[in-house]
Amino acid sequence: MKKVILMLAAALSVAACCNKQETAATDPAEVVMQNILNRKSVRSYNGDTIPAAVMENLLKAAMAAPSAVDRRPWSVIVMTDKSQYETVFEGNFNMQKYMESGAVVIFCADTVFTAPTREDPDGPAVTQVNQMWRDDLGAVTENFLLAAEAYGLGACWTACYPYPDRMDPIKKSLQLPPTVVPYAVVPVGYHDGTTQPKDKWDPARVHYNRW
Amino acid sequence: MKKVILMLAAALSVAACCNKQETAATDPAEVVMQNILNRKSVRSYNGDTIPAAVMENLLKAAMAAPSAVDRRPWSVIVMTDKSQYETVFEGNFNMQKYMESGAVVIFCADTVFTAPTREDPDGPAVTQVNQMWRDDLGAVTENFLLAAEAYGLGACWTACYPYPDRMDPIKKSLQLPPTVVPYAVVPVGYHDGTTQPKDKWDPARVHYNRW
Repeated sequence: MKKVILMLAAALSVAACCNKQETAATDPAEVVMQNILNRKSVRSYNGDTIPAAVMENLLKAAMAAPSAVDRRPWSVIVMTDKSQYETVFEGNFNMQKYMESGAVVIFCADTVFTAPTREDPDGPAVTQVNQMWRDDLGAVTENFLLAAEAYGLGACWTACYPYPDRMDPIKKSLQLPPTVVPYAVVPVGYHDGTTQPKDKWDPARVHYNRW
Repeated sequence: MKKVILMLAAALSVAACCNKQETAATDPAEVVMQNILNRKSVRSYNGDTIPAAVMENLLKAAMAAPSAVDRRPWSVIVMTDKSQYETVFEGNFNMQKYMESGAVVIFCADTVFTAPTREDPDGPAVTQVNQMWRDDLGAVTENFLLAAEAYGLGACWTACYPYPDRMDPIKKSLQLPPTVVPYAVVPVGYHDGTTQPKDKWDPARVHYNRW
């Protein structure tokens, strides 16, 4: 009888494992999809601070973005000192609602780079305008938002570039280097979970092989 | 004895479930992080086609991107007809290596929009340049790349905008509407898994509260 119990136990255990593993095998893609589809713009926070280790993971995700010719033109300013929020929000009257966010992250880009040209990679370093920094920064910002969603945080991408009214107070108060622009200002923090994601799927926006 | 077997079976079943659930409870954030950190630019494919249902999920992920003032200026052209790849690649000599990709996805943006102004939302519709389409498209493209990674596909973001040499053959051959620009050309497909992601984490790029 003991043998029967062990066999039954083994069979059940394998069955349970296999079922779970079958679920797990398809899970990662579903988890990633759900995270992407659940991301939303959160505009109300509870004031709680974000643990440093969590913030570091969000920043690691941000810097894992693709970058044209691997230039990585990004820098990030993490504001946790709420007394500075007013200055950062100065150029955008819509920002007052973000005073209770746990941090305000300013994604910046260096708009020029100094390196050998692509045509003469062994030649002398020259300073050039980086035509692709804005695209890199878009991916950086999106990665950050997706990681925030994954950790149960809310965030909201607010545009800074190309609006002088929004950029100038930040450039001035933070004394950014002349070639560095503040690209986006992203409040991030804990929230009550009531904000629902939008369903933006529209098959009419997809064309196959021709417009 | 039958009762003992049932109790044992139930206990084993619960134990198996709970262990799995405990793992699953901490997993989603890690799964999302790993997916973001594992994304890489894949430049060699095995020619296999991508199932339509998988492509649809990638496109759903793309269109879940945030969009400034919710304008959603995006359209997508999915090329699976390889006889057209040459035309799409015409303006960029680096693209020949993508002939074996399962699809080539062209992310497009309408650079103008027609709607009431933000200042007078109940007023007449006016046509305006959309200053934020490029940022929206960056997020769209990154979402697509992350979903591709999740489904075991490789992809590579290749720039199209703002380079006339790259955009013009696509605009012409696909007869894009005059205000629509091809933003990025993204080959996507199955690959041998040898491409490793880059570790781009650089804490020196993070500033706290001041530059």
